[in-house]
Amino acid sequence: MSKFWSSMVKRTEPYVPGEQIEQKDIVKLNTNENPYPPSPKVIAAIQQEMGRNLQLYPSPTATELRETIGLQYGLTAEEVFVGNGSDEVLAFSFMAFFEPGKPIRFPDVTYSFYPVYAKLFDIPYEEVPLNKDFTLPVDNYFQSEGGVILPNPNAPTSIYAELEHIEEIVKNNPDQVVIIDEAYIDFASKSATELIRKYDNVLVVQTTSKSRSLAGLRVGFAMGAPSLIAALIRIKDSFNSYTLDRLALVGAKAAFEDEDYFEKTTQKIIATREKMNETLQQLNFNVLPSQANFVFTSHQTVPAEFLYNELKKEGVLVRYFNKPGIDNYLRITVGTDEQVERLVEKLTDILNL
Amino acid sequence: MSKFWSSMVKRTEPYVPGEQIEQKDIVKLNTNENPYPPSPKVIAAIQQEMGRNLQLYPSPTATELRETIGLQYGLTAEEVFVGNGSDEVLAFSFMAFFEPGKPIRFPDVTYSFYPVYAKLFDIPYEEVPLNKDFTLPVDNYFQSEGGVILPNPNAPTSIYAELEHIEEIVKNNPDQVVIIDEAYIDFASKSATELIRKYDNVLVVQTTSKSRSLAGLRVGFAMGAPSLIAALIRIKDSFNSYTLDRLALVGAKAAFEDEDYFEKTTQKIIATREKMNETLQQLNFNVLPSQANFVFTSHQTVPAEFLYNELKKEGVLVRYFNKPGIDNYLRITVGTDEQVERLVEKLTDILNL
Repeated sequence: MSKFWSSMVKRTEPYVPGEQIEQKDIVKLNTNENPYPPSPKVIAAIQQEMGRNLQLYPSPTATELRETIGLQYGLTAEEVFVGNGSDEVLAFSFMAFFEPGKPIRFPDVTYSFYPVYAKLFDIPYEEVPLNKDFTLPVDNYFQSEGGVILPNPNAPTSIYAELEHIEEIVKNNPDQVVIIDEAYIDFASKSATELIRKYDNVLVVQTTSKSRSLAGLRVGFAMGAPSLIAALIRIKDSFNSYTLDRLALVGAKAAFEDEDYFEKTTQKIIATREKMNETLQQLNFNVLPSQANFVFTSHQTVPAEFLYNELKKEGVLVRYFNKPGIDNYLRITVGTDEQVERLVEKLTDILNL
Repeated sequence: MSKFWSSMVKRTEPYVPGEQIEQKDIVKLNTNENPYPPSPKVIAAIQQEMGRNLQLYPSPTATELRETIGLQYGLTAEEVFVGNGSDEVLAFSFMAFFEPGKPIRFPDVTYSFYPVYAKLFDIPYEEVPLNKDFTLPVDNYFQSEGGVILPNPNAPTSIYAELEHIEEIVKNNPDQVVIIDEAYIDFASKSATELIRKYDNVLVVQTTSKSRSLAGLRVGFAMGAPSLIAALIRIKDSFNSYTLDRLALVGAKAAFEDEDYFEKTTQKIIATREKMNETLQQLNFNVLPSQANFVFTSHQTVPAEFLYNELKKEGVLVRYFNKPGIDNYLRITVGTDEQVERLVEKLTDILNL
């Protein structure tokens, strides 16, 4: 602490991201990245842009990328906002739609960045307990004073809430913004984007970091009614005119244009997930029903923290949260089939099976 | 305005960046970019990184880049912060060091993003009038209540304040942070970085967008005492874990490593600036003594707004600010010799010389 720190710095409790270890022989299943590289068309687009005008500012409006994303969902550029990863988009959303003095609601077990934003921007919050089976207690989100933010599928639980339940929450908060954080939606069932033309208070946030294999490029986006998008643009233009660099803009655009590659890699991950679920169950793990690119799992007899540490010694990184209610669970990213085999091999050794 | 907008959105008055027109035949002298492309070593570094792990998150700490920048200035990584352009670094600095209720000070003629940040974060401010000759009234910055932010060289005036004056301001605000925004310092005399080890309240902000030819890549940085840098890291880690993508991280690092290229292009721009000054004076312009990569100039008889519009019709973009005190000035970026020739040719036509 220093006398120069503002009250804002003093009240922060920063987020701690999963470890980023760059080591060839490590099996990295701790930060829910895609195990497959981005589409070759992404690389080609960046390649081409690289030789052009890197000395000039990028487009401050990012209109082309917003149009391309909009096309995927039947939306116009005015209904799409883009930012430096969905984390930046979420930060801007907290600034744009939530208010000091008015408590917002999110699940007690959820993306641990939400309370971090809330503290930063001095927004009070209620952590709504999940049901015992980690599903969403839908009614408890009705008539919130300050708004709602929910991931769907939820993280780290991997559980998807049916769209009709999401719609109930949106409908029962007519004067507040409901943010649906769909980082993992492409591995799940229906997106809430189809509610956008029906409700003016729903904001759907997505990312290219998971299903589009672009965690290294930092491109997230939000979709909603034009008046919500306009608010995000006002915040962005009061903060940083150009949040996406030239290479990220063209790379993300190319990723959305290569639908085939996206379908192929997404289906591969879903197939691996289902196999992984079965195998883990054979090793006496309980596995929550995942609709994400990770599983949330607890062993019937061996403590999660022990498994986390032993796996780490063996070069397999998974994520462990030392948090009440989930401190006997591991969150494990769905990797390639080979990575999952390595995981299972090591787990079998550790469990002495 | 929508009922869903927070009080923060409502009070914003967003910044309007200079036009970004992507047209081959245009002479773009309106946003102070470098007319030369980045070093070939930057391109090579990005090229190499592109084939590697774009699907994985970048380093959240950016330690390698911070070390590389630190080396240039005899500082450690703990004394360097990096962000998504100096605009993001400035936004984080407003959050980290300035306080609602405590007025900060900046010049009345300066970078027009400062009042935008102040409004966003609800920080009161005093606009300290520049002297008649656009120099800094040093004493008027002493004993500020909430802190000071100043560009040096100033923008859009291009005028550099001697380091001893900057030091006076730092020394006379012992309990407040003084931010020196050195976006253009590489075209000027001494940087305030040499004050960092002497004073714990000075933060020096720089960018790769001007002298390093990387406006399109979005990399800015701040240097200061470790306790100031720690505050910026806390804010960033409460906002967005990964603000710099993989390509920007390696590209910026390579730019700092190619000292020769940097020296050569910077010296070329300074030489062109001096020629441009002389030529403009021959066309009856008054030109302020520039230590930046742009000039600030007023014609002795023809209004600036007229010249701005006529130049635009002729495909030459410069920047005009319709603001009291400077509404008869043009801010013109120093381009290549060829671009400056085109500018002079068009000006000669317009002035009917």
